[in-house]
Amino acid sequence: MSNFPKLGILGGGQLGKMLCQAASEWHLPVYVLDKDESFPAAPYATVFERGNFRDYDDVIAFARNLDVVTIEIEHIDTEALHKLEKQGVKVYPQPDKIDLIKDKGLQKQFYVEHGIATTDFKLYGTKEEVNRAVEKGELHPPFVQKTRTGGYDGQGVAVIRYREDVPDKLLDGPCLVEDMADIDKELAVVVARSATGEVKVFPTVEMEFHPTANLVEFLICPAALDGDTDGRASKLAVDVVQQMEIVGLLAVELFLTNDGELLVNEVAPRPHNSGHHTIEACATSQYEQHLRAILGLPLGDPSLLRPAAMINLLGAEGHTGPTYYDGWTDVLAIPEVHPHLYGKADTRPFRKMGHLTALGDTVAMARERAARAQSMLKIIAREA
Amino acid sequence: MSNFPKLGILGGGQLGKMLCQAASEWHLPVYVLDKDESFPAAPYATVFERGNFRDYDDVIAFARNLDVVTIEIEHIDTEALHKLEKQGVKVYPQPDKIDLIKDKGLQKQFYVEHGIATTDFKLYGTKEEVNRAVEKGELHPPFVQKTRTGGYDGQGVAVIRYREDVPDKLLDGPCLVEDMADIDKELAVVVARSATGEVKVFPTVEMEFHPTANLVEFLICPAALDGDTDGRASKLAVDVVQQMEIVGLLAVELFLTNDGELLVNEVAPRPHNSGHHTIEACATSQYEQHLRAILGLPLGDPSLLRPAAMINLLGAEGHTGPTYYDGWTDVLAIPEVHPHLYGKADTRPFRKMGHLTALGDTVAMARERAARAQSMLKIIAREA
Repeated sequence: MSNFPKLGILGGGQLGKMLCQAASEWHLPVYVLDKDESFPAAPYATVFERGNFRDYDDVIAFARNLDVVTIEIEHIDTEALHKLEKQGVKVYPQPDKIDLIKDKGLQKQFYVEHGIATTDFKLYGTKEEVNRAVEKGELHPPFVQKTRTGGYDGQGVAVIRYREDVPDKLLDGPCLVEDMADIDKELAVVVARSATGEVKVFPTVEMEFHPTANLVEFLICPAALDGDTDGRASKLAVDVVQQMEIVGLLAVELFLTNDGELLVNEVAPRPHNSGHHTIEACATSQYEQHLRAILGLPLGDPSLLRPAAMINLLGAEGHTGPTYYDGWTDVLAIPEVHPHLYGKADTRPFRKMGHLTALGDTVAMARERAARAQSMLKIIAREA
Repeated sequence: MSNFPKLGILGGGQLGKMLCQAASEWHLPVYVLDKDESFPAAPYATVFERGNFRDYDDVIAFARNLDVVTIEIEHIDTEALHKLEKQGVKVYPQPDKIDLIKDKGLQKQFYVEHGIATTDFKLYGTKEEVNRAVEKGELHPPFVQKTRTGGYDGQGVAVIRYREDVPDKLLDGPCLVEDMADIDKELAVVVARSATGEVKVFPTVEMEFHPTANLVEFLICPAALDGDTDGRASKLAVDVVQQMEIVGLLAVELFLTNDGELLVNEVAPRPHNSGHHTIEACATSQYEQHLRAILGLPLGDPSLLRPAAMINLLGAEGHTGPTYYDGWTDVLAIPEVHPHLYGKADTRPFRKMGHLTALGDTVAMARERAARAQSMLKIIAREA
């Protein structure tokens, strides 16, 4: 395929899988590096290579014949990526941007330095420092403690509600502590910036979290916002991606406070859970948009064509073992419901096993369909 | 994946590829049999097996661990499929239905016997018989001669316009001869019938053919028909699939005569070129619908969500060799244009190298976008 560069993806999880699926439309050659062939992306990569994307030598060896390298997870060692960049491989998002984002402390400092509204925060070196600050009365629960690195899917975040939670519920390691923002809504805006500098922004989505798993439960698009707020959310996301000069997707998570203020919570430089619905609901999916951006192609039209509601399909509580989709047939009888399964052989409580996007004439219709599907489908452990 | 049967597809061309892509949403395990790994479906099959789907032993060996077997082309030897059916493998479409359809003579006789309107025809055993009928004055050009078996993508069809075309332009072998129907429009209706007997019909599409290559050039949906005609077209397709008792998709090609009569031209028991647009334009794609039908799952909603125009992407005239997509970047700048490339390493004149679906607020908008893309993209031969 003489037109197309060879693309490598570090990570073969569901985001890597969905990038492979998007690439399949153009028959784009995609190489994926991850531990073993049980990973979601493996069957849909042109070439799947076993290896550890956190290992310097594995990454260098993986990229030896590739033209462009991207990631599906930012919590990686970027040393090899810096080396590849020096060797002339296009690495998008750029390694220095990944370094900035994966350390939540640096990320927050970037916002402060660039005049981007974010929640107030303080940095601490250790759990003990946080404990001391509480004991001295400098820091008062409720607050949110986040480890500076390694947080993902609700990991690395502690919500400290009461004085008695300290020190037992505190997390180890360098961290930041934020006030509990006075939040009306949690929003996300996925924005793309191409290697050519072109920027396009997807419609704002509204998120609701599962009460115990700290994972997004419902995502609706369009968000129920007045036009002014919606416009400000898009503009803020564009501002962040342009100031960071990221190439690729940037998912910008925002808080809308009860005062109507928009604050950046955090960002991810890759396809994001809050953009899954774009596969069916938008003129261009976030996955195709990421490919366009990192390959320097014109960005696609991000318009929403149809209201959508998305749910993550999580492993049922109390079930660990071989995956079984109970209620599968019933779910498929609901119109405009699109389940995506990630093919994980084993389930465990709250594991992300797939997602499901429902469309409808209105958000209410889409959401009702998604909720109906959710009530029918249980991902449980059962031998075949 | 304990819920899912193991599915096999005979044939790894673009239709097989798009079945694999649809199956990837559910992470359904798909086995594909075809000659070698250069075939379009190979990178997207869970398991790709080298072999000849026209070879009895290869097919039997391929299916030894499979639960359900389907096809992406009906011009195959069905002996192995009959054997598999006897062994308890679910073969959809059923082998006897494939036998019926792949012989255009038997197919036409079926329509006559079941009161399904079709063009008038006569069967002949050889080219010489056709020649004699013309010489005797029993048969008068213009007419269309079709070989009873082996016709595909414009192969096996001769349009005999003048007396002087006989015998030189006649095709060899058993054939049928049809009147040149007095055609206003050529239509296609893709309909699905599930293993459970459920039937759902996709919206009618209107086709326009390339003037020399005898391949569909433009496909538009919805077709420009009055409601009565459109309803009759859907009803006719449902009638055919129910009378044939096919399990899976059936693409029903229809002629609308200048008198407003609808005649069945021919059918194909598989995903069809006239259903490519369903990937982006309909609530359920024809590929997912075929999977649902043959797996006995509830059929999806076939509603058109957005007007569409589809073009086949053909190899440029005068170009044979390594494929190069000239104008690729420009095409991607057009909104709501979805090119699908089949990854064929070599191009040749009029070879089907891909297709492209454009959406829009209206058919006119979709068609203008598709035409613009077509004028920009040339699939040529060029070394990398």
